[in-house]
Formats: sequence, structure tokens, C-alpha cells
Amino acid sequence: MSLNTFGHLFRVTTWGESHGPALGATVDGCPPGIALDEPMIQHWLDRRKPGQSKYTTQRREADAVRILSGVYEGRTTGTPIQLMIENTDQRSKDYGEIAEKFRPGHADITYWQKYGIRDPRGGGRSSARETAARVAAGSVARAALNHLAPEVRITGYMVQMGRLRADRDRFDLSEVERNPFWSPDAAAAEIWAGHLDELRKSGNSVGAVIEVVASGVPAGLGAPVYGKLDTDLAAAMMSINAVKGVEFGEGMAAAELTGTENADEIFMGNDGRPRFSSNHAGGILGGISSGQDVVVRFAVKPTSSILTPRRTITVTGEETEIVTKGRHDPCVGIRAVPVGEAMMACVLLDHLLLHRGQVGDAGGRIG
Amino acid sequence: MSLNTFGHLFRVTTWGESHGPALGATVDGCPPGIALDEPMIQHWLDRRKPGQSKYTTQRREADAVRILSGVYEGRTTGTPIQLMIENTDQRSKDYGEIAEKFRPGHADITYWQKYGIRDPRGGGRSSARETAARVAAGSVARAALNHLAPEVRITGYMVQMGRLRADRDRFDLSEVERNPFWSPDAAAAEIWAGHLDELRKSGNSVGAVIEVVASGVPAGLGAPVYGKLDTDLAAAMMSINAVKGVEFGEGMAAAELTGTENADEIFMGNDGRPRFSSNHAGGILGGISSGQDVVVRFAVKPTSSILTPRRTITVTGEETEIVTKGRHDPCVGIRAVPVGEAMMACVLLDHLLLHRGQVGDAGGRIG
Amino acid sequence: MSLNTFGHLFRVTTWGESHGPALGATVDGCPPGIALDEPMIQHWLDRRKPGQSKYTTQRREADAVRILSGVYEGRTTGTPIQLMIENTDQRSKDYGEIAEKFRPGHADITYWQKYGIRDPRGGGRSSARETAARVAAGSVARAALNHLAPEVRITGYMVQMGRLRADRDRFDLSEVERNPFWSPDAAAAEIWAGHLDELRKSGNSVGAVIEVVASGVPAGLGAPVYGKLDTDLAAAMMSINAVKGVEFGEGMAAAELTGTENADEIFMGNDGRPRFSSNHAGGILGGISSGQDVVVRFAVKPTSSILTPRRTITVTGEETEIVTKGRHDPCVGIRAVPVGEAMMACVLLDHLLLHRGQVGDAGGRIG
Amino acid sequence: MSLNTFGHLFRVTTWGESHGPALGATVDGCPPGIALDEPMIQHWLDRRKPGQSKYTTQRREADAVRILSGVYEGRTTGTPIQLMIENTDQRSKDYGEIAEKFRPGHADITYWQKYGIRDPRGGGRSSARETAARVAAGSVARAALNHLAPEVRITGYMVQMGRLRADRDRFDLSEVERNPFWSPDAAAAEIWAGHLDELRKSGNSVGAVIEVVASGVPAGLGAPVYGKLDTDLAAAMMSINAVKGVEFGEGMAAAELTGTENADEIFMGNDGRPRFSSNHAGGILGGISSGQDVVVRFAVKPTSSILTPRRTITVTGEETEIVTKGRHDPCVGIRAVPVGEAMMACVLLDHLLLHRGQVGDAGGRIG
Repeated sequence: MSLNTFGHLFRVTTWGESHGPALGATVDGCPPGIALDEPMIQHWLDRRKPGQSKYTTQRREADAVRILSGVYEGRTTGTPIQLMIENTDQRSKDYGEIAEKFRPGHADITYWQKYGIRDPRGGGRSSARETAARVAAGSVARAALNHLAPEVRITGYMVQMGRLRADRDRFDLSEVERNPFWSPDAAAAEIWAGHLDELRKSGNSVGAVIEVVASGVPAGLGAPVYGKLDTDLAAAMMSINAVKGVEFGEGMAAAELTGTENADEIFMGNDGRPRFSSNHAGGILGGISSGQDVVVRFAVKPTSSILTPRRTITVTGEETEIVTKGRHDPCVGIRAVPVGEAMMACVLLDHLLLHRGQVGDAGGRIG
Repeated sequence: MSLNTFGHLFRVTTWGESHGPALGATVDGCPPGIALDEPMIQHWLDRRKPGQSKYTTQRREADAVRILSGVYEGRTTGTPIQLMIENTDQRSKDYGEIAEKFRPGHADITYWQKYGIRDPRGGGRSSARETAARVAAGSVARAALNHLAPEVRITGYMVQMGRLRADRDRFDLSEVERNPFWSPDAAAAEIWAGHLDELRKSGNSVGAVIEVVASGVPAGLGAPVYGKLDTDLAAAMMSINAVKGVEFGEGMAAAELTGTENADEIFMGNDGRPRFSSNHAGGILGGISSGQDVVVRFAVKPTSSILTPRRTITVTGEETEIVTKGRHDPCVGIRAVPVGEAMMACVLLDHLLLHRGQVGDAGGRIG
Repeated sequence: MSLNTFGHLFRVTTWGESHGPALGATVDGCPPGIALDEPMIQHWLDRRKPGQSKYTTQRREADAVRILSGVYEGRTTGTPIQLMIENTDQRSKDYGEIAEKFRPGHADITYWQKYGIRDPRGGGRSSARETAARVAAGSVARAALNHLAPEVRITGYMVQMGRLRADRDRFDLSEVERNPFWSPDAAAAEIWAGHLDELRKSGNSVGAVIEVVASGVPAGLGAPVYGKLDTDLAAAMMSINAVKGVEFGEGMAAAELTGTENADEIFMGNDGRPRFSSNHAGGILGGISSGQDVVVRFAVKPTSSILTPRRTITVTGEETEIVTKGRHDPCVGIRAVPVGEAMMACVLLDHLLLHRGQVGDAGGRIG
Repeated sequence: MSLNTFGHLFRVTTWGESHGPALGATVDGCPPGIALDEPMIQHWLDRRKPGQSKYTTQRREADAVRILSGVYEGRTTGTPIQLMIENTDQRSKDYGEIAEKFRPGHADITYWQKYGIRDPRGGGRSSARETAARVAAGSVARAALNHLAPEVRITGYMVQMGRLRADRDRFDLSEVERNPFWSPDAAAAEIWAGHLDELRKSGNSVGAVIEVVASGVPAGLGAPVYGKLDTDLAAAMMSINAVKGVEFGEGMAAAELTGTENADEIFMGNDGRPRFSSNHAGGILGGISSGQDVVVRFAVKPTSSILTPRRTITVTGEETEIVTKGRHDPCVGIRAVPVGEAMMACVLLDHLLLHRGQVGDAGGRIG
């Protein structure tokens, strides 16, 4: 990963600012011959789109994607795919104050410290709008995965909002698309709704934990020891705006287990593949997929753009206070769900290609 | 990051297996003119070396490093630095059984699934011995940091063993080097000692949480949006053997906070630099260092090599049981402390060079 | 260099096909704070634009560039710069026949062999239209060089058309912009005009040799041994459509010299820098710039799209004949001049940043 | 390509100086399961070894290679392969003078200008000894090619020494191994022998042109537009010490041809593959292999280490004279032959893996 590109063979470079004319993704290394058109991408973009419920920012963006290159007569050609999304609902006047003041907990100050210049309109490059480009790229990855590894299924959902956790005993993945929080626990979704209503009215925000699961992932993906599957997924998720932690399987809680508890015992399945008694590992051992579900979770911090006044400084070093008006997500974690799915899709496809490149069909069979 | 190399400008490629003739690191992109000799590297390697207390593997390795290139008359020349450590205490006979059986929770099975061949002696490439090469490379990074950013201090320590957490109210960094667990809480170290004694005697193992703090990091390091400082640090830490989660500042707990709670308010310090009321962010905003302490934590799972019999399968698909004899660490987290420090040093230096390359002195000043 | 991206720190990814909606360049890693606007880029694009004389393709493209990101209030922000050029004069009907037949000497057949699909309209991705994106990116590099190394001057010109060579004794760089061939030898330009008229009328084409010189290049640029300045320049020039050879200084003719003849003797200049008696080396020793003029030449083969019938095969394996109608350049070498300059600018800036990253001010002084 | 690494998936990092303890190559990304042992590598190293005839340097190096990692029981494991060659015949005393003076035409001065420090013993990192590591890495690539594309044959030979060219009408590849110049023209070899004897006695040196041909290369290799096969081969060859020009097929002479002359007409072969009437293109169209022989040539300049006194300056800026004693190659081009072959092998394997990764079996068939 480097600067604005990620991926080894399936390489995604995103570009664009929140209030510039457009943003997008340059996708390089996609296999040729994959069926792809704009509606296929739009389908996934629409899931991330702002303004779809009262729980996300009221900015109204069509997020309409255009394919500018790399596709001929509905199929990828193997050359770079340029995906462009025009910005249409920029209200830059909302952002006058933050051109001079740094929002606490926001990238305003560090972009300034690093570059000595920043586009303050809507957070510029550091805006969560950049994630639309990830979702667009992710939909290309999904199309290719659908062709090369059709058994892969990627599902993201929210498992925690603030201190309120969903209950795994009530998990039903068919619920995920039925509530505005992508919650697999319908009861939790109702509780979260009430909680977020209160926070929103008081001009506050809250964090969340997102889980993304990929099932049907072939064994053998991941390139130890610095291109491990979990290494690349950790980087991919951590690069999403506002993410502060990433974990696999037991994650941070793995520290609490003994070796006896943590070992996922191995048996032979009826399909001639290994079967595991549990999945503490989150589907990855030594950085390589085992064939079990790949399970990653990440924590999204609360938006720093809040109505409560906070102490801060100006570009010229004056101490002052700031209140962020604008239009913001009270819980950005919600819209991070499709983004996490997209990153999973990109990383899995990338490692599928990388593995095919190095190893081809030479992988090991058991039995 | 790709395959066995990490870093953008300061690039480290590690090589070698647990029971091969040697292992090492090829370090490319080091600035020229940096004072460096073997004792400087040995100093850091000795901290990671096995067999130093009863709490780590009893394998006896001198871990003596040789500089084979890139240094002339005690200074780096800007050309690749080859660091070699010969393996001397290989008892391959200990590993007969695991050539045929896969240890549950270990990379044995996935290396086989991926490559169709594996070096089973001591875990081959997936062995934690690989981390000696990281520590060697990290010591080069430290030498360069010492020259380019002498105010940087990197300190790693253990904050949790199993369910037993160190108490931050008792933290005293001067304690870290005084106990075999790198604990800043002397009382916790004593409790851990008893706990680990029991586990070790019962042939079991346990996980841990390590924290690494870098103070004195210049503001402006990190290359959004896919080469963010936290992105690269997350990848660096996740690539360490047995790590299952990585977090910055509040980390996974950031999900529990509101925007009001999470905002680190900003003031002007007496030194003319920004001063923050708190450090929920772990020193990184928008992927760029703010000048605050960079704080990363990672969870290390318990070793899968345990004496308790576990169910598993053989290469030929037979179901069976396994007990791992060999010489193992009951808590590999202990030896991960110097490794985490080394990764921090490498990533910081890399981003210092990357920033100098793109931005030079053009960064922004406040006031 | 990989797939559709080149550069280490200043990274350019081009995208787009000859007859798609648009093409462009995603430029990442540009230093912040550089003055840049669309007219500055348009200036260089206009020099490469087709249809400017009867000696280049009659396709009429405005080649109007839009900056979609990475620039705020007329200065670069350090984030990715997206440069888009819309295609406006696509006459795809001209290309019906070549969808079925492979033009001898053209990439038609190999794109098909590689990808199993190709965009045949105007050569798709393999069209020389892609080079507009390079010129756009090169103009960003020039803007940054102008800021960071203002003494650098890059001049490209044609030194040979077919068997007709310009005469170095008549070289006058002020002539370069005064004739349609970028010839520094006004007399040669007249001869070439007559020669090309004949070839054009007979539906034939011809090759050329282009030379690009960069003066004022600081000593010390280039990263041995695989990121040498000449290595990267050779790759940059060889990647231009139709280029078959690249050479530095004496180039292929260096084989004919003895060591005595080839040595550029060194003296001390009045400015305290080394002065060389000659420049057989083309300004690069051991892959590092010496401070002398960097001199590269490359040969451009004749266009394969010609009116003379040639034997070929169809996609289904039938033997047949082909005549390429369309609108083509009788000597594509002409329009390669601004492209070669652009590649030189990109590579020099990239190495300037790379050198600053690794070495900073630690380079050696003489005297 | 970056710094001391080249390759996309099959990545080679070389390290080591002429007079350090050792040098070598870290080879990453090799497919697993490839038969490999030290004698297989030694075979190719012995061809490059110095001191084999009076026409190469009299330095006596065994160039004995050791495999330190990545191979288990005679087969590659897919993990990094470390190849080490110890230096045994360093006579550093020969190099006293050049620690203070810069040899004209040598990298002495630019390494100093770049890094402010250099290892002067035998040219340090800029010595042609570095190419031993390339040959070692190339032999790994050959082993993998032998497995994955067994029809590939790579043959290098000298086609020109000074102004004396071999005669293509007399070419007989079986002669190549029978004379000390790798000449396919036995008569030329005799003439060169006399010429070089004279030059050697007079303490002078001379340049050469090397040609490397790969037959049996599958169609479809190369990743346009910046990872083209000829782009990567040009970089690979240009990175070899003393190379000043690289060309494919007609090369620089392509400039002299018309489109009618240059077009390689296409027919259907009896084997159902395309057959070409000629190979002006050198086997590469649009940066992708066509199935024809890949033909590259490169020019090697004369060694700058000569006995004739030349004017130069010292590190402190004094003007002086230099005569290089040491032990040098009167025609380094000779030993560049196996190096060029090795680079060809590495690049071909790399592109084979890259193509397999992106495209798999989806390439196009004709007929």
C-alpha cells in the first residue's frame, strides 16, 4: 500500500475531494472478460449513499457513477477502469469557519501540519466521501470474484453502537438489509434507533463496531509474511476514515484465552475438506486463509463534527471554540458497512490473483 | 507491503526459516552516513533472544548478527544492508510428528494448503524466529531515527496477560526492563509470574496485549489515504506472528464514546506547538501524526504448540490427535515486545523519509 | 513500474482508450503548494495535439484538460491530481475492418492473445492517444520541477527521419519550435518535409529518432542498482508507443569506443563544481546524474497503419489482406517529441523526491 | 523497479559490495515446488566467473553459492530464497589511490555526489561483481521457467566488439560456448582475440554489443502500458553495469524503415498459431509477446579502469591524473553475456507469473 493506491495486482487508486468537481477510483489489474456495467456498480453505491435515512448526513448526492475506460461492450478489457462520480450537492458556505479553525479529533490540523495547505471544504480529501470511490472499486472486485470464485459471499453488519451491543443469539443475516443500521439483530436496531435519535437531537455523535464476514473463501490466500491476508485486510480496514481498531476472529480478546481454548480443532469434512470445531482464528492462520469464514471487525470512532462547542486553535495559533454546523453523520459507522464490504472484496480478489500468479494450481491437497 | 518486504522507502525484506542455516533481513533505502555496527544491532537482538528466563522457549540461540553489506568504516553507505543471523541450536528431531500432522491453531495447515510443500522443522518460515530479523532491521531504523529525529523514543511493554491486566495507575516505565514480562506495573509482573508458572507446568499457553508508545514523533508523518501512518502501523503489527488485533489510542473502545467525549481539545503549548487535552486518537488524525504520542496496542494469541492433546488431521486426511513437544513459549506475547518496538521504528523511519521526499520543508506551521 | 503506473514517489497512472468517453492521468505524490492550473497543462498538451499540420493525423481533438482533484485555489494540495481529457472526435466507423483483422506490426494481435478481448476502435488502449495523458502528467512534473529545481531545462527534438539525419553542426535549439518536426536543424526540416509529403501521398509511413536533453539536473539523482536514473528513463521512453530502442550519451555507439576515448575527463569548474571534457556518458555514471546534461535518444518505428496492402490473418484464423484507412500519422515520431519531454520531466521529479527522501542534504561535496 | 529490487511478482533484491564479506540475492515470489539445489545455480555462476581466460579480470573468485533459505529437500517452498556468495580474493590494497581520486567514466564521483560516502574498494556497490547475484537469481528463474514454460530457450552472445561486428551469415549458435567471447561467429571470435590482445597489452579497453534471444516465449506476456515486456526488459538490461543502450528487433535502426518495410506480415502456421514473415519487432508488439523470438541487444561501454593516464580531480577538489592498476576486464562486455541471459530469465518468469495472476487461462485464441 502506498499513498493513494492499495493492492498488489488488483490495484485501486482513489482520487477526489469532498467538494471538488468529482471523485473516483482508477482500478488497474482487473482480469479481462468480466461482465461489468454502470448499474452493477450503482447497486452497491446506492447502499452507501448519504441521505437515505435520518440517521445519516442530509447531504443529497446522487452518487451516479460513470465508467470512463476499461470496459468494452459490457466486459472488462484488462486495462485500467476509471470510475467517476460527480459531486453535485456541495454547500461550501457551510464550511467557512473550519477554514480557519481545526476541529478537535479531525484531520484538519494534521493535513495542515503535513502539507501546509488544505482544502477545507467538507474536509477535502479526508472526507468520508472518499469512501464512495472504494465502494465503486469494490463492486468491480465483486464482479470479478463472482466470476473467479463464485462461492464467495461478503456480508457486513453493525454489531455495536456506543455501549449497546447486538446479541449474537439473535443474529439473523436476513435482517441486515431491513433496518437502517445493517443490524443482524432486529431488536438491537430498534434500541439503536432510539439512542441515535437522542444523540442526533443533542448534536452529538457516537462510535460503532462493524463486522464483515466472507464465506466461501478458498484456502491458501495470503502471502506471508508481509502480505498476509490479515495484514492486508487490517491495512484496508484501518485506512477507512475514523477506524481506530481492527481485529480477526477472537481479536483483542484472544489475549484472554489459553492455548487449549484457542485451538480450533481439525476434522475431515464430508466434502473432503478440513472442518474446524470452532473459528477463534477468524479464518486465517499464519496469514493464509484456511477455508473457514474470514471474520474481521473494526471500530469506528464518533464523528468529530458535532454541535457541542469544543476548545480549539486557529491556523494563526489563537485559542478559540468551535461548533461544527454542516451536515454530518451522527454515527458514521452506519455508512462504513458497505465500505468494509468493498475493502474485503478488493483484498480477496487481489490475493486470489496474487496466489494464482505465484502458485497456480500447485497448492496442497489433504487426503 | 508485498510478500516478504515492507516499507515504502526504508524497505525491509526478511528471509529464512527456523531450522535452516541462517535467517536475516535485507534492508534497503537506509539513509547514508548513519553510524552503525554489529554491537548496536546485537543490543536489541539480545532483548528478544530466547532462553533468557523460564518464561520463554528454552531454545538457546546466540542470535549473533553479522553485517554483510551496506556499511563502510562504521557508517551506512546508502546501499542495501544485509543482516545475517545463523541458526545454531536446531533440534529438528523434536519436530518429526508435526511433519505429518497439522497443529490446530497453527499455520501448518495453511502453508500446506497454499504451497503444497512446507518446511515443518520448527514451523519453517512461519516460526516466530523470523522476528529476530525484524528486530535486527528495527535496530537499523533506530540508528537512523537517532540521527534524523533524535527526540523520538519508542517503548513497548505488556499491559495484559490472559485476563490479568496491568493497572495504569501503577505504570512506571522504568520498571519495564526490570521484570521478565516488560511490565510497567511491577505488581502485575509478580501476579503474571505465578499465573504463567502454572500454565507452563500444565503444558498450556496464554495470550497477551502489548502496547508500544512512540513519543517525540514529528507532526505530519503518514500518507493518506492508503499509506496512513496508522494503516502502515496496523499492517506492521498484524504481520507479527500470532497477532489477532491492532488498535490505536482508544482503539476498539472508541466505539463506545460519543463525539463530545472523544474530541481531544486543542490548545497552544508554551513551546508554540499545539497541545491536546487528551489523547483518545493515539497521536494520529486522518492517518497523519499530530505530534502527540503515537500509541498502538496489539493482541497476541496463545501459542498453539501445547502439551494438551488436541484433535487434528494428517496430511493424508486421517483424523488423529496431537501433542506438541518441542521447546515453546508459554506466552509468546513476552518476546513480541521488542518486535513491536522494532516494527514501530521501521514504520516511523519509513514515513519520515516518505514525508521528506514528498513535502520536504513545506509543511504547515501554526501561529 | 507496474501495469499502468510508473514512478516511485511521483506516481502517474494513465487510463483511457482512443475512442472511449475520456482518458487521463491520476498523478499521486506531487509535492504540495505547487502553482498549477488548467492553462499551464493545456500549454503542453497543445504542443502534442493532433491535426496541427499536414504531417500528423487529421483527427481533430481539442485535448482540453480538466483538473478534477488535488488542486485548491491554484496550488497542489499533496493529494491525487486527476487530469481528464474528453474524447470528442471519435469516428469509430473507420475501424470496422480492424475489429476482425490484425494489422501487421500493430498491437492488435497481441492484445487479443493476452486478454481474449480488445477494444478495436482506434487501437483502444494501445493507441498513441494514451500519450496525451503522459503530457498532462508531465506538465505537473514541470510545475513541480520549476519550484524545486528551477535550473532544469528539458528540450526534445527530432534528429533523424528515416535515413535522413539532422546535422549537429547546424543545431540551433531556437529552431525547434519553428518547424513542424521539432528539428534543431532548419535545413533538415525542409528536406524532411519533402520526404514526408511523398510518403504520406503514397500511404506509407516512416520512423524517426528523438533526442531529449535535460540541462541543470542536480548531481546525485538515481537509485542504484535497479532504480538507476538511466534504468528508469529507459523504461519511461521504451513504454512510449512504437519505441524500439533507447540510448544514453554515446548509446549503442559506445560499443565502438576504447576506454581511452570514452573517458570524460574531469576538471574543477570555476563554480566549484566538477567540469567534464566531454559527455560520452550522457550525464549519468553508475546510474546517478553527474551534473552534466542528461541526454537520451529513442527510435520510433514507422506507423503500422498504412495504405499499402499487407498480408495478415483474422481473429478466426483466416489468411487475408489489410489496408488501414482511418486517420494516421505518417511519422508518429513527430508527436513523440513532447511525450519524451514529459517522460523526462516525470522521471526527473520522481528521482528528485526519491533522493530527497533517502539522502536529504547528506550528499557529498567536492572541494 | 525500485532501488535494489526488480520484478513485480518474482522479485529479486541484490546486496553486497565488491570487497565486503559477501554478496547475494534475496529472491522472493518464486513458485513453490520447483527443483533447485546449489549445483544448479553454480552451473550458471561458473559461466560468469572471472579469471577464466586472459580476456577477463584475473581476480580469482570461486563464486561458490550457498542457498540459505527457501528450499526444503531440494524443492522451493514459495518463501524467500537467500543466495549468498562469499568474497574471497579481495586485494583492497590495489585500490588505495581511487579512494581519493575519481576515475573518469566511472561511478566513483556520482556515488560520492549522491551519498557523501562510498566504499572505494573495488568500486563497492557499483562493481560488476554485483552481477554475480543477478546470475544466481537468474538461475532460480531458469529452474522455474523450466517447470512452467519448458519450451523457453535463452541464448546470449556477443555480436560486436569495438568496431568489429560478427557476420550474421556465419552465425552458428553451437559456436557460442566454444570461444571465450560467446561469439556465434567463429571467425569473428578469432579476429576479436587478436584485437583484444593488443588492447589489453596497451592497458586499454573496448566496448561491445550483446544480443540475447529467447525462443519459445508464450504469446501474451507483458503488461501495458508501463509494465510492457520491452519496458521491463529495457530497464533490466540498462541496469547492468556499463550498459548505454538497449534495443529490440530492428532497434535504433527501426527509425530508418518505412511502414511497408517494417510490417511483419502474418500467416497461419501449421501448428495453428500465427506465423510471421519476419521479426522486425523483436517478438514484442504493444509491449506484449507475440510468440516470436524475443530479441534484445545492449551496448556495453569500455571499462573506465584503464592504464592510460587520464585527467581527473580528487575528493578535495584538486586537479590531478589517474591510472587504474587493479585487475580489470579489457572488455566487460564478455562477462555481460551470462548476465543478460539471467536478466532475460528473471523478467520472463516475472511476466509469466504476472500474466497468470491477472489473466489466467482467459487469453485469446486465434482460429
